[in-house]
Amino acid sequence: MSASSPLEKPDSSTALFADLYELTMLRAYAEHGMDQIAVFDLFFRKVPPGQNYLLTCGLEPLLEEFESFHFQERDLEYLSSQAFFPQSFIEQLKDFRFTGDVYAIPEGTPVFPHEPIVEIVAPIGQAQILETLVLNQIGLQTILASKAARIVHAAQGRAVVDFGSRRAQGFDAAIKGARAFYIAGVASTSNLAAGLKWNIPVAGTMAHSFIQAFPNEIAAFRAFVTTFPETILLVDTYDTLDGVRRVVELAKELGTACRLRGVRLDSGDIGALAVASRAILDEAGLHKLQIFASGGLDEHKIAQLLGQGAPIDAFGVGTSMSVSDDAPALDIAYKLVEYAGQGRMKLSPGKRTLPGRKQVFRNFHDGEAQEDIIAGCDEAAAGIPLLELVMRAGRRIRPAPALTGIRDRARRSMAQLPENFRSLPPPPSPYPVRISEKLQAYEQQIRKTLARS
Amino acid sequence: MSASSPLEKPDSSTALFADLYELTMLRAYAEHGMDQIAVFDLFFRKVPPGQNYLLTCGLEPLLEEFESFHFQERDLEYLSSQAFFPQSFIEQLKDFRFTGDVYAIPEGTPVFPHEPIVEIVAPIGQAQILETLVLNQIGLQTILASKAARIVHAAQGRAVVDFGSRRAQGFDAAIKGARAFYIAGVASTSNLAAGLKWNIPVAGTMAHSFIQAFPNEIAAFRAFVTTFPETILLVDTYDTLDGVRRVVELAKELGTACRLRGVRLDSGDIGALAVASRAILDEAGLHKLQIFASGGLDEHKIAQLLGQGAPIDAFGVGTSMSVSDDAPALDIAYKLVEYAGQGRMKLSPGKRTLPGRKQVFRNFHDGEAQEDIIAGCDEAAAGIPLLELVMRAGRRIRPAPALTGIRDRARRSMAQLPENFRSLPPPPSPYPVRISEKLQAYEQQIRKTLARS
Repeated sequence: MSASSPLEKPDSSTALFADLYELTMLRAYAEHGMDQIAVFDLFFRKVPPGQNYLLTCGLEPLLEEFESFHFQERDLEYLSSQAFFPQSFIEQLKDFRFTGDVYAIPEGTPVFPHEPIVEIVAPIGQAQILETLVLNQIGLQTILASKAARIVHAAQGRAVVDFGSRRAQGFDAAIKGARAFYIAGVASTSNLAAGLKWNIPVAGTMAHSFIQAFPNEIAAFRAFVTTFPETILLVDTYDTLDGVRRVVELAKELGTACRLRGVRLDSGDIGALAVASRAILDEAGLHKLQIFASGGLDEHKIAQLLGQGAPIDAFGVGTSMSVSDDAPALDIAYKLVEYAGQGRMKLSPGKRTLPGRKQVFRNFHDGEAQEDIIAGCDEAAAGIPLLELVMRAGRRIRPAPALTGIRDRARRSMAQLPENFRSLPPPPSPYPVRISEKLQAYEQQIRKTLARS
Repeated sequence: MSASSPLEKPDSSTALFADLYELTMLRAYAEHGMDQIAVFDLFFRKVPPGQNYLLTCGLEPLLEEFESFHFQERDLEYLSSQAFFPQSFIEQLKDFRFTGDVYAIPEGTPVFPHEPIVEIVAPIGQAQILETLVLNQIGLQTILASKAARIVHAAQGRAVVDFGSRRAQGFDAAIKGARAFYIAGVASTSNLAAGLKWNIPVAGTMAHSFIQAFPNEIAAFRAFVTTFPETILLVDTYDTLDGVRRVVELAKELGTACRLRGVRLDSGDIGALAVASRAILDEAGLHKLQIFASGGLDEHKIAQLLGQGAPIDAFGVGTSMSVSDDAPALDIAYKLVEYAGQGRMKLSPGKRTLPGRKQVFRNFHDGEAQEDIIAGCDEAAAGIPLLELVMRAGRRIRPAPALTGIRDRARRSMAQLPENFRSLPPPPSPYPVRISEKLQAYEQQIRKTLARS
């Protein structure tokens, strides 16, 4: 049975997830014989306020898009219907595929301003048409992974659960978000579609509406526990501490059969309620029952709660993480840096673009990252090179790594970042990123050429 | 040919775009004989800071999801693989459909706190399982439409073009966003997939990379104009005013064949550059060439530019609109308000829920909205009722209106809002929303019942 739902059957292929100007430029390039190899760099110029790094995310799903990139019949019919494209151009699109090479910093790596996260080397039209797709997908997943990394760090080893699907900006953000959060160290997601798609553990408790539907709170608790003995009960529908007392009452009814896991606090002064709830549970000998907190949490509130000693065992985080509320968009750029073997750059004020193909070298001391050097791709600088060849002639050079592998890499590479960059208070100075002297000289040389033109 | 791209072929159906707890509650409801009719209201408790209203959006795509709502084989296999669901429950899901009634305030209506935007009347499990879907989709599209409405108002009749796809939070946000923006009065979108899906006009100019790929700026301009004579040229790649002078040079070369439409400014002090560019163009007799501005614009910057008299004819708006950057999430709630004919509500602090089925009446004076009254659904209050029956027994009672019709309605209903609520400076007091005395009395009655339970 096939459904007509937008989630299931979009009307166009990914190739049409492009801005009109990418297609008009493609036509203009073709008509003017511009078919040489171009290099486009994806990078950002500064970290969002209050952040010290960004955690790369979104590469593997993007490479999958590149491999399957093509126009379908309906896309071409649509383009034909627009005034911009003659039939001869539409014919060319029928066989359009991405045949370029891609270099990238692997997912789950902390990165800094001006470092190329993805470098695409392809005939200029092919690289140009990917602009919107690349910016949208890597931009989104990178801000979400970065937000989650800060939240996970603030939770100091306690589990963080993704409750954000209801607030995420649409289907794709929720599902890609769950993946980004998991890579950044979040334990599980509430979203079933994400659980299926990425094989991420799913978790959940119960809603206020379940409690409200029953004649009273304890009747609702009893019913839910009959069906799900190992559950976490939501206690704030009417009065949080009364709710906790009803959990104690239920635990006594159940006696040795009690397999309850804990209570969830979702409103009010979570810190004070956690202390009071813990006291009530401990008083009743229910030391094993955990306290789960949710409701408007972010990295700062979690740090504050734990800083004041709130006895919270796990956190459910929604809104702030799901939309990266303090930095909902990243000023990420996808810029031409080389065409036909020659470096290119913009001179627009405040919009530095480093020309040419590059490599980023990370230098370590005692296992801690000390400094990055952005250099030309043929330079031999000190440090570990971060950019890897991931796609050659439009095909991935290795199968996609398992998500758990990407998650492990993120944990390791985050652990290599000095603590003052991982923690929330701003460090005395930003992480040092140096541009090699050779690359600086090349930038000056290209700048002069452009000034003369 | 079928592709494996995530945009084209998600792994699950919309039914699985749900939080785990919705499915566990569904099972618990079924096992405890809870199959009575429930009423759930979708509403928000306050407008985001700096906003005076929200513009409803997202209903018609949501109703389409409801009509096609079902679990597919793969969804059920996945649910079977989880610990929470016995085979008997999975069997029940095979025939699961949404058979409820839906009342809603039509898309493109300004709404205020506590007003039910959507009211769902269905067996409790059916209404419960829609929670994440409804919150995610209406929440997103409503904040995006509201942001765009403020931007369109600030542009004072000048065209606003959606350039936001590259910054939107994923595929769905970009495509649904283009629809929301169009409803709110945006003229066109750069996104081709959105253009195809919603039949929205598409627009675009050229990227810096096109200019950079050529040996110099005028060579790039010449090439592009040969292919697209009626274009807008991007002038800030190297130096904005030099770019404008090159456009003048090109216009002279073209002579009477010149069909250029204008120039685009994308960086620097847009206001001052617009004045200087206009002077250069006018000096050359190119009065017909328009000035198009883009680059980091939002409603406040547009208001400022026009307030200082910048000669700008149209605006391209991306980031701020695409993610609703000042309010990237809406604290929107989907709450049980009635079960088995009896009003229900939460008592959690700061989370008022009005019990029972409702109607919202809007009162007008001289064609201007003066006050809304939230009342019980069977009350006869003064004013025009806003909630309409849109779905009966799981089927829409009328075909989806054309998007242009929804856009017209938005324009009309926004025009009925007094100017001090439409404009950016905060009004002396919020738009008045009154709760009928009968509904207040019912709220008190239910509160007492709950306090006793």
